[in-house]
Amino acid sequence: MSRTVTRRGLLGTAAGAAGAAALPPSAGAKPAPRRRAPRRTDVVVVGAGLAGLRAALDVVAAGRSVVVLEARDRVGGRLLNHALGEGEVIEVGGQWVGPTQDVLLGLARELGVDTFPTYDQGSYLYAAGGRRERYSPTGPLGPVPPDLLGAPEAFLAIAQLDQMAATVPVEAPWKAPRAAEWDSQTFETWKLANAHTPGARLLLDLAIEAVWACEPRDVSLLHVLAYIRGAGPAGGGGSLNRLINTAGGAQEQRFVGGSQRIVLGLAERLGKRRVKLGSPVRRVVQRKGSVDVVCDTATWRARSVVVTAPPAVTASIDWEPWLPADRAQLLQRFPQGNAIKCQAVYDEPFWRADGLAGQVTSDADPVRITFDNSPPDGRPGVLLGFIEGHAARVWARRSAADRKAAVLRCFADFFGDRASRPKAYVEMDWSAERWTRGCYVGFTPPGVLLDFGEAIRRPHQRVHWAGAETATVWNGYMDGALRSGSRAAAEALGDLA
Amino acid sequence: MSRTVTRRGLLGTAAGAAGAAALPPSAGAKPAPRRRAPRRTDVVVVGAGLAGLRAALDVVAAGRSVVVLEARDRVGGRLLNHALGEGEVIEVGGQWVGPTQDVLLGLARELGVDTFPTYDQGSYLYAAGGRRERYSPTGPLGPVPPDLLGAPEAFLAIAQLDQMAATVPVEAPWKAPRAAEWDSQTFETWKLANAHTPGARLLLDLAIEAVWACEPRDVSLLHVLAYIRGAGPAGGGGSLNRLINTAGGAQEQRFVGGSQRIVLGLAERLGKRRVKLGSPVRRVVQRKGSVDVVCDTATWRARSVVVTAPPAVTASIDWEPWLPADRAQLLQRFPQGNAIKCQAVYDEPFWRADGLAGQVTSDADPVRITFDNSPPDGRPGVLLGFIEGHAARVWARRSAADRKAAVLRCFADFFGDRASRPKAYVEMDWSAERWTRGCYVGFTPPGVLLDFGEAIRRPHQRVHWAGAETATVWNGYMDGALRSGSRAAAEALGDLA
Repeated sequence: MSRTVTRRGLLGTAAGAAGAAALPPSAGAKPAPRRRAPRRTDVVVVGAGLAGLRAALDVVAAGRSVVVLEARDRVGGRLLNHALGEGEVIEVGGQWVGPTQDVLLGLARELGVDTFPTYDQGSYLYAAGGRRERYSPTGPLGPVPPDLLGAPEAFLAIAQLDQMAATVPVEAPWKAPRAAEWDSQTFETWKLANAHTPGARLLLDLAIEAVWACEPRDVSLLHVLAYIRGAGPAGGGGSLNRLINTAGGAQEQRFVGGSQRIVLGLAERLGKRRVKLGSPVRRVVQRKGSVDVVCDTATWRARSVVVTAPPAVTASIDWEPWLPADRAQLLQRFPQGNAIKCQAVYDEPFWRADGLAGQVTSDADPVRITFDNSPPDGRPGVLLGFIEGHAARVWARRSAADRKAAVLRCFADFFGDRASRPKAYVEMDWSAERWTRGCYVGFTPPGVLLDFGEAIRRPHQRVHWAGAETATVWNGYMDGALRSGSRAAAEALGDLA
Repeated sequence: MSRTVTRRGLLGTAAGAAGAAALPPSAGAKPAPRRRAPRRTDVVVVGAGLAGLRAALDVVAAGRSVVVLEARDRVGGRLLNHALGEGEVIEVGGQWVGPTQDVLLGLARELGVDTFPTYDQGSYLYAAGGRRERYSPTGPLGPVPPDLLGAPEAFLAIAQLDQMAATVPVEAPWKAPRAAEWDSQTFETWKLANAHTPGARLLLDLAIEAVWACEPRDVSLLHVLAYIRGAGPAGGGGSLNRLINTAGGAQEQRFVGGSQRIVLGLAERLGKRRVKLGSPVRRVVQRKGSVDVVCDTATWRARSVVVTAPPAVTASIDWEPWLPADRAQLLQRFPQGNAIKCQAVYDEPFWRADGLAGQVTSDADPVRITFDNSPPDGRPGVLLGFIEGHAARVWARRSAADRKAAVLRCFADFFGDRASRPKAYVEMDWSAERWTRGCYVGFTPPGVLLDFGEAIRRPHQRVHWAGAETATVWNGYMDGALRSGSRAAAEALGDLA
């Protein structure tokens, strides 16, 4: 059976979102009359993803009342399981965890969610420039694609980027000694000046696409460096390889039962009555000492508010008083990347018997990166391919059938004809999600960090900003989202003191 | 008397906006009950600036009914007069018109609004690099700042940009033969590679700041080229000098009585009952064959809709069905520039007697560009200085008093101590305007035109996009706004056919 999960299916039905039905919608879509007296709580949290639920639990732990308003009819934000049947799941959103993501790892332990290694046995495949070669991911340098000129040049470039990143203060990238120079150019410009072989350029393109789901031309070099700087322990030591690698990197481990278990675990702790689903926030009105948060189901009056949605999504909220100019301008300049996550399900991971890890590095269109995304016991076999950046923008406008055919053609080119006949096919285009507006994360084009960076976490009176895009350490990742939630909760509790 | 016009003053009182009171607010701020039956019209136009009023008049001319919904309590958008007393006005928004802006010039003639030349007699001042020299604007090349190395290099760079621009199709810049290369870099990157003297780099910085009110690092080279290409006759021949020059350029002429007369003239033709002020649009719901437009004063049901607000402003509207992903993504990637327009009023334009035109080219902070903005008869004398791009972002966070002191210090440095004692001082920060969110115009960072450019004018079912940001010829200018209004009206009339 081949099956395309549409946005509607995933959000509106229990079939698509395993476990999400645990929290039923709290109300229908009809707007509540606006004149009803506001309901009261100490803190309102906007968004029931990792950041929002973490913030809410921190507020509760401090003995204060909290309500989480969630636009969707489910919790989880960018985390979403998809049931494969017979108790097996895959994720159609964020899924991995790796070393130094200690907050996420600690929470998983607390919640009793086990991890297991991403399948990484056997050879990787390099399928680019008309070549198709296996290579080992277990050398002393990790996986080195078999491009004799390109790979060493890419590794030198990565070492150089890591050194540059080490000079970027993760709390204030705009204060790096060379911030003006680095925020004045795209990553593409730096790449063209510092990598000259087609192979190295391809590998750097793939790194940018794999981490930000945008193109090297879209993103500021300074943003890339700040992100690298944050990909490690809070004290420093971030590296691009930690962002892109499986072993030793951000793709090293997966969660048994799917990453959504983390967010469902938080929601369960918080309790159903504190989470209001189907409640998109339309308007936030601040008066002396209080904030009215108007959503489709009610108006809540709080003493502090934490907003966790991506900056681009918060641009739809009507703020009274209006946002400070630099915040309003930041929201015009903090776009989300573009990723379509495509997975094909087979009876078994047949590529393993062929000595393949399921990981591909390619210049193909539309899928240039793949993973073996099978459940822990390898039944069923799941191939995961990402369509990212430019390819995601182009292929999003094609039909679902065309897209599926193109993805399966790539899979078959990489893994043989058997890959063209999956028993199920699942895709998720996060750019079409109105309450996320693109994955994996928001990024900044040139010039934005320099002139608007200070507005990223600066509160708007009693409104505090959280979410993966506001994180310093592990910006854009589940770990960073959790850290941002705790930071914003502490700020909010300050308003109640 | 020294006077700072605040946003509140300009929008809320008749004193600030001469003539704007001709159209009283149609309703208070209280939301109307949502369940009232919608009012009906053929076309709803969102925004009563030049584009919106032009579109509405074209609809009326075709024998169809139209309603214009305007968020502010005045018409005019980025056009706004400020009364100096005794019948004299200056503009705190857009004001100039120049050769090849034939649509605007033709409309002004139709409405009986005369033009007069921007004061351009005597010498310009070059105040940079510690030097302060006069130079003539009337040589065969136009104004050539007295930097022996920098000026020729800047002129060569400008000639090169014009040649590159000539290869950019104004309707589809992303189809230029070198589009990928040019949309992969900031203008800053191109500048550093093609201009090597500090003087040339300063002049190119000033050109970008003066035209886009952003920094060279913020904007895509391809966007700059497309904009240059559109600065001329529809058939071609656009040039950067036409964008930045007074004589022969976009600053050549002014409107007697202020540019707002154009927009008030259009509004008068359209008639008060067709324009609903104080009516910010919150929600647009499309069903088969009709569109409901929900604003604070009513719900209007139309068969077609024209939206003229800048893209960044339309990101606040709730769309049902939700915007196509590429349109939603475009709105995350189309920021407005940052300009604060500062004017000091004196009994007379005393610099004229000193042989000065009032135009300065400088590396000062915060004012690097000035004009003589006196009324036609030179009474009173008005100096106009712009704070643009980075300076506008920094100085917007300072107090109004600090800003005024800094501007007057610049004026005194340029024109002598007398400039520090104006009888009035007027400033307008367009970045703080929630219904514009920045001036002069929206621009695109690298990568946006390539991957999202096709969404700029593509209708969302029965919703059509207009406004200066959607123009092809004279994008960002009054002339382009008018052209966009007519184009969108034609599209809307197509929905009624």
